Amino acid sequence: MRFLEIIEKKREGLELNKEEIQFWIDGFVKGTIPDYQVSSLLMAIVFKGMTAAETAHLTLSMMNSGDVLDLSKISGIKVDKHSTGGVGDKTSLVLGPMVASLGAKVAKMSGRGLGHTGGTIDKLESITGFNVAISTDDFIKQVENIGLSIVGQSGYLVPADKKLYALRDVTGTVPSIPLIASSIMSKKLASGADTILLDVKYGDGAFMNTPDQAKILAKAMIDIGKMMNRDVKALITDMNVPLGNAVGNALEVKEAIETLKGKGPSDLTELCIKAGAVMLCQAKIFNDISQAEIALDAQLHNGSALQKLADMVKAQGGDPNQILNPELLPDSKFKTKILSEQKGYINSMHTTQLGHLAMILGAGRATKEDKINPAVGFILERKTGDLVHSGDVLAIIYHDGPLSEGWIKDFKEAFQISTQPIDKVPLIYDRL
Amino acid sequence: MRFLEIIEKKREGLELNKEEIQFWIDGFVKGTIPDYQVSSLLMAIVFKGMTAAETAHLTLSMMNSGDVLDLSKISGIKVDKHSTGGVGDKTSLVLGPMVASLGAKVAKMSGRGLGHTGGTIDKLESITGFNVAISTDDFIKQVENIGLSIVGQSGYLVPADKKLYALRDVTGTVPSIPLIASSIMSKKLASGADTILLDVKYGDGAFMNTPDQAKILAKAMIDIGKMMNRDVKALITDMNVPLGNAVGNALEVKEAIETLKGKGPSDLTELCIKAGAVMLCQAKIFNDISQAEIALDAQLHNGSALQKLADMVKAQGGDPNQILNPELLPDSKFKTKILSEQKGYINSMHTTQLGHLAMILGAGRATKEDKINPAVGFILERKTGDLVHSGDVLAIIYHDGPLSEGWIKDFKEAFQISTQPIDKVPLIYDRL
Repeated sequence: MRFLEIIEKKREGLELNKEEIQFWIDGFVKGTIPDYQVSSLLMAIVFKGMTAAETAHLTLSMMNSGDVLDLSKISGIKVDKHSTGGVGDKTSLVLGPMVASLGAKVAKMSGRGLGHTGGTIDKLESITGFNVAISTDDFIKQVENIGLSIVGQSGYLVPADKKLYALRDVTGTVPSIPLIASSIMSKKLASGADTILLDVKYGDGAFMNTPDQAKILAKAMIDIGKMMNRDVKALITDMNVPLGNAVGNALEVKEAIETLKGKGPSDLTELCIKAGAVMLCQAKIFNDISQAEIALDAQLHNGSALQKLADMVKAQGGDPNQILNPELLPDSKFKTKILSEQKGYINSMHTTQLGHLAMILGAGRATKEDKINPAVGFILERKTGDLVHSGDVLAIIYHDGPLSEGWIKDFKEAFQISTQPIDKVPLIYDRL
Repeated sequence: MRFLEIIEKKREGLELNKEEIQFWIDGFVKGTIPDYQVSSLLMAIVFKGMTAAETAHLTLSMMNSGDVLDLSKISGIKVDKHSTGGVGDKTSLVLGPMVASLGAKVAKMSGRGLGHTGGTIDKLESITGFNVAISTDDFIKQVENIGLSIVGQSGYLVPADKKLYALRDVTGTVPSIPLIASSIMSKKLASGADTILLDVKYGDGAFMNTPDQAKILAKAMIDIGKMMNRDVKALITDMNVPLGNAVGNALEVKEAIETLKGKGPSDLTELCIKAGAVMLCQAKIFNDISQAEIALDAQLHNGSALQKLADMVKAQGGDPNQILNPELLPDSKFKTKILSEQKGYINSMHTTQLGHLAMILGAGRATKEDKINPAVGFILERKTGDLVHSGDVLAIIYHDGPLSEGWIKDFKEAFQISTQPIDKVPLIYDRL
């Protein structure tokens, strides 16, 4: 088989077969097919796309390029969820304990953050002693015992995707639905869960700009799931506004704790209840979404959901006191209020820019080597749709060094304020 | 400037500016921009094309990546021609001497062959002692003295194209009009001639499949010429049939000699007279095409054109006796007749396959390192449109080793014979 012929076939819009896709991924991982040929194929895929069958073959080839987790020792249905990434997205910290407290088995592998989006693993590391790198045996035992574990991705999970994504990132070949879908799904499938709930976000700060594009991506991932006999469902959600009010690692853990006490921001609480209900139905613990929603709401008020988070933290070597007394979590040296200079309605927020500004404070990484400062970030006091008066607090910045004038200017400019009120967009646009 | 942004800009179909194209070619030649980024841009260009301005900037950047010949020491207008390459194309060997014999100044740099097409330089090396690598000073002096020199491309002529073509060849990014046009024109412009006549071929064995595609390519090259103030004209010619009857290096030199005596195949003679007339008008030696054609025809019968070839061969260290007595040129050990097995009309010939079969005999190169055997090849006794009877000679094969059954089978299959007669297609489809 010659790789040049595979490139030419795709360039002409023909469908690649299973063997050709396997040849590509094998050769790329081994290094026998050079990067300059793979990047040319990737750009042809950006233009010509991939069929559902091609996307499934690619996903499978990537999944099998490394370790595939076997969770069969854990009894019952193992549920997993995945968010396509957003600013202030601490859903996993809330959702995992919520559904586990009702008996679902959550064996979750999460990523670290890069650029303007944070990672669940980075957030959990705000908790003193919390170990994100426990052994696979301990991971499986913990899920069997307490129903919940969240760990970092093992080094040898889907190496093909790691290498391919690094190449896509520098060759302008990120925006391709089949490539995004197979990248996400290969990792999810290799993590071994029986069911997957996808939170596919659209808008500023997300991979997809519009709800329709997000639906196309979600459908591509559901199709992959079907071909692999996995139950995959999706919510299409808005990312034009940060989720919740907190952005920054310890700040987001604190907000997750508040939410698990039933006192969290309404958008985050709503998303966790709606997503959790889908997961509980996928786990066959409920067969009615609204009953599951009622049960989840109860767990937020009776202390069970919060206790489940504390149990997981304890099991993974973290300090459960920090969960029950979140004032023990890392705190920044300085707090600075950002005041509105005008009166009006917040018509939109530049979410990507806010994520980027949090990164500059130290809450995220510009490069993989950067260290994260868990204490820094900000709490938004006003969001899209809110009325503000001149002098009102827009946000409180948590920082350890001086805030530059440029940073403050950029932060203020992330809020577009107008005299016209606007309707709030619903958080959940669609379910698939 | 970040190269990733240049890739993304082209992917979105936007026009690259002069500085961006210069940055690309500079960085690629220096090695600061990696191949995997360049190949991704090239594939985006295959899909999104380039504007006339972009194509001109690319041509100029490539031309300036190496030496640019200064032919100003040669008096008068320096004419050049370029064929996009075909099987049996020995036009330069005939055309150069013809127009030089009427006073045109021909300072020509030619390439070597690769794959199914032969190179003029390889053909000239069939002549004992002929030096294709004379110094630039000697090249210029020779053109001033006798009006004609044909040499190989100097090592440092358009290094950007050399590197870019090598990458395109293995990344499926050859078929792009602006990339083909800028590749050809950067070399032609760097060779320093004032006027260029392009022979743009279409059909089996050519870059372009149809006359319309060939016209688009020709127009792209004429546009580049306009932006650089060069007089560029084009003929659109058929490559569905090999040009002339001889394929193979010494065999083609012999056929060129016959043609220069006025006894060559009609298609080759016609093309050389028509193309030569355009070149003589470009050189302002004639201002009427038909008068130039009459003059050229006379040179084939009065011995002047052949003498000019002998003069060039002598000036470049070759044996002029081989020109006046072509039986002294290399000859193969064996000659084998290929007979037709059926009666009918030759409806088409698989030109690429014939070129490939000549290469297998040793007349061409599969890789750049292969050595050429000047003696081998074949003479076609019948071509498209001809009536053949069973037992008629289709071709005579000149070979130095045994002919395999598979080779003979493939050779016969390159002729499609049918009971229906067909009209011959005119050799010259259009002029631009």
